[in-house]
Amino acid sequence: MANKVALAFDLGGTELRGALVESGGHVVAHASAPTMAVAGSEAVIGQIITLAADILAQRPQAEVVGIGVGAPGPLDPKAGIVIAPPTLAGWHDVPLIDILGSHFGLPVRLENDANAAALGEWRFGAGRGTGSMVFVTVSTGIGGGVVAEGHIYHGRRGLAAEIGHMTITGEGERCFCGAIGCFEAVASGTALGRRATALTAPGDGSLLRRLSANGDVSAKHVVDAARAGDVRALELLEAEAKWLGIGFTNLLHLYSPDLIVMGGGLANGFDLLAPMIRTTVGQRAMPAYRDVPIVRAELGARAGLIGAASLILWKGEAGAPLAMTHDENNNGTPERADREASHG
Amino acid sequence: MANKVALAFDLGGTELRGALVESGGHVVAHASAPTMAVAGSEAVIGQIITLAADILAQRPQAEVVGIGVGAPGPLDPKAGIVIAPPTLAGWHDVPLIDILGSHFGLPVRLENDANAAALGEWRFGAGRGTGSMVFVTVSTGIGGGVVAEGHIYHGRRGLAAEIGHMTITGEGERCFCGAIGCFEAVASGTALGRRATALTAPGDGSLLRRLSANGDVSAKHVVDAARAGDVRALELLEAEAKWLGIGFTNLLHLYSPDLIVMGGGLANGFDLLAPMIRTTVGQRAMPAYRDVPIVRAELGARAGLIGAASLILWKGEAGAPLAMTHDENNNGTPERADREASHG
Repeated sequence: MANKVALAFDLGGTELRGALVESGGHVVAHASAPTMAVAGSEAVIGQIITLAADILAQRPQAEVVGIGVGAPGPLDPKAGIVIAPPTLAGWHDVPLIDILGSHFGLPVRLENDANAAALGEWRFGAGRGTGSMVFVTVSTGIGGGVVAEGHIYHGRRGLAAEIGHMTITGEGERCFCGAIGCFEAVASGTALGRRATALTAPGDGSLLRRLSANGDVSAKHVVDAARAGDVRALELLEAEAKWLGIGFTNLLHLYSPDLIVMGGGLANGFDLLAPMIRTTVGQRAMPAYRDVPIVRAELGARAGLIGAASLILWKGEAGAPLAMTHDENNNGTPERADREASHG
Repeated sequence: MANKVALAFDLGGTELRGALVESGGHVVAHASAPTMAVAGSEAVIGQIITLAADILAQRPQAEVVGIGVGAPGPLDPKAGIVIAPPTLAGWHDVPLIDILGSHFGLPVRLENDANAAALGEWRFGAGRGTGSMVFVTVSTGIGGGVVAEGHIYHGRRGLAAEIGHMTITGEGERCFCGAIGCFEAVASGTALGRRATALTAPGDGSLLRRLSANGDVSAKHVVDAARAGDVRALELLEAEAKWLGIGFTNLLHLYSPDLIVMGGGLANGFDLLAPMIRTTVGQRAMPAYRDVPIVRAELGARAGLIGAASLILWKGEAGAPLAMTHDENNNGTPERADREASHG
């Protein structure tokens, strides 16, 4: 019997991933390739077409009802145009929806990658059942997506929720965007790694430098060292969590969501960061906002793919997957009761 | 012939204002009284009822179709409950919609004061015709309201757009809310007056102190002195405009509106502030956001009343007053061409 599925792509600057996703948000086939990021849009669109063939060959009986794509911004989701992503050379106003629609003869929808991940988490991950949600991804940079009343909050030209470039301080190194004090510049995984690198020296025997083989220390090394009880790493995470708490407090005051979901690479250290994030929010947020749960994302690196698929599969109102039947076999989505690790 | 009008109230901590507002947003009768702010909710509701009688007596032939109220937050606009406004003693979870609805036998709608002013400006003032807008009121504090896709962006419990308590710096005096670096704490009219007071001394012969009769210098004194060419006042406004520019840049990145509208007392100095606001936005905003107009509010102190009335009168989609016939006599609303003083 045929299953209705969406073909989904997550077009990143380093990796291109594709999947077939069925109702309930489950990935039933997937494949990936290193993005030919410097080869221009035609080459990458060729990769998408090749990857699609690979994936469809895994499930020849699948009935593909459309294609959802998450791609780096800036992009115009309504017009279906990738405008000028800094991580993809030679992409300028590429009408990706038209190109893929013509090739495959299927409906195509486009969303920026952070918004796609936010949709994935809201519909099938940590945010399911909530009316509104702010998704924050903390890794190399900081990105985000806001879901309100059942929709991504797009704003003019789809440019809302550029939360990494919200100024939260007057200090710190200049952000690549040119401003001082961007949330991303002080609170990203990159910023954490930079602080850890500055605090240590090659050959100093510290756990941080042993984990990094005496190279630059990354955010992952800090989390690993903190798990081993390293005092310096724990202090670095405490400072990191304070910055995250300041930024999250702003997001509470500005968007008043029902829930904040933290994803990205640094979410691997969420359990270590959460107590100080909550302390900072408790100190800085106005009372009415302090009890909003802040939780870890559930879908990991697949959030963007699953969210892109949902652009095709999901037709319902907030919290109600009207156009989708829930899977009988819930294979892999954690139970909701597990998800409020940080709350309390 | 009867005209359909709304009865509107703007319930402030110092002044209670009421008006009859007809289609097109024009005030056809109004009255006000000093709010009995320490006398509890029953006394103030009695004032509202008395004021309503005064206003209705001015236009006995008017056909009142409902009552719109702007009141201080926090409040729940859907439930119609004023929760606990800091400026009104003895108000705790007051079901204002039910109380006024029972008394008058009319539909009643409630919105917080900043959101009501945002609606007024969007529907009948500087924001008319735009799809989305952020309204910022800069006076004693800083408040705001966000209109997106034809609606106030409410968030959980109507608490979104608490923009005065967005952290934008690590410096400055502690905000009354307890945090450091709130937008309001560094960029409100109060903050400007405080800086002007600290920069001068009673009896120093400065224009600022002459204007203040050697008392504390207010934001209005700074604007007046700057208009007279006072160098110190101009420098104070330049610093003020930089803070406003930092905050407005965040609002662009977070909400991506089509327009920012600045109201409140300090909008009286908008022409003096606008060049440095724009320079700061040009330096700090990412390129795609830099051309968003930032304009002065048009409705002044009446924005809240007119917006409250529109809760009753306005039934249409964004930019289209479907349920209202436009006034033939446009008496008092400036022409749209005048409104982009700052843009260029």
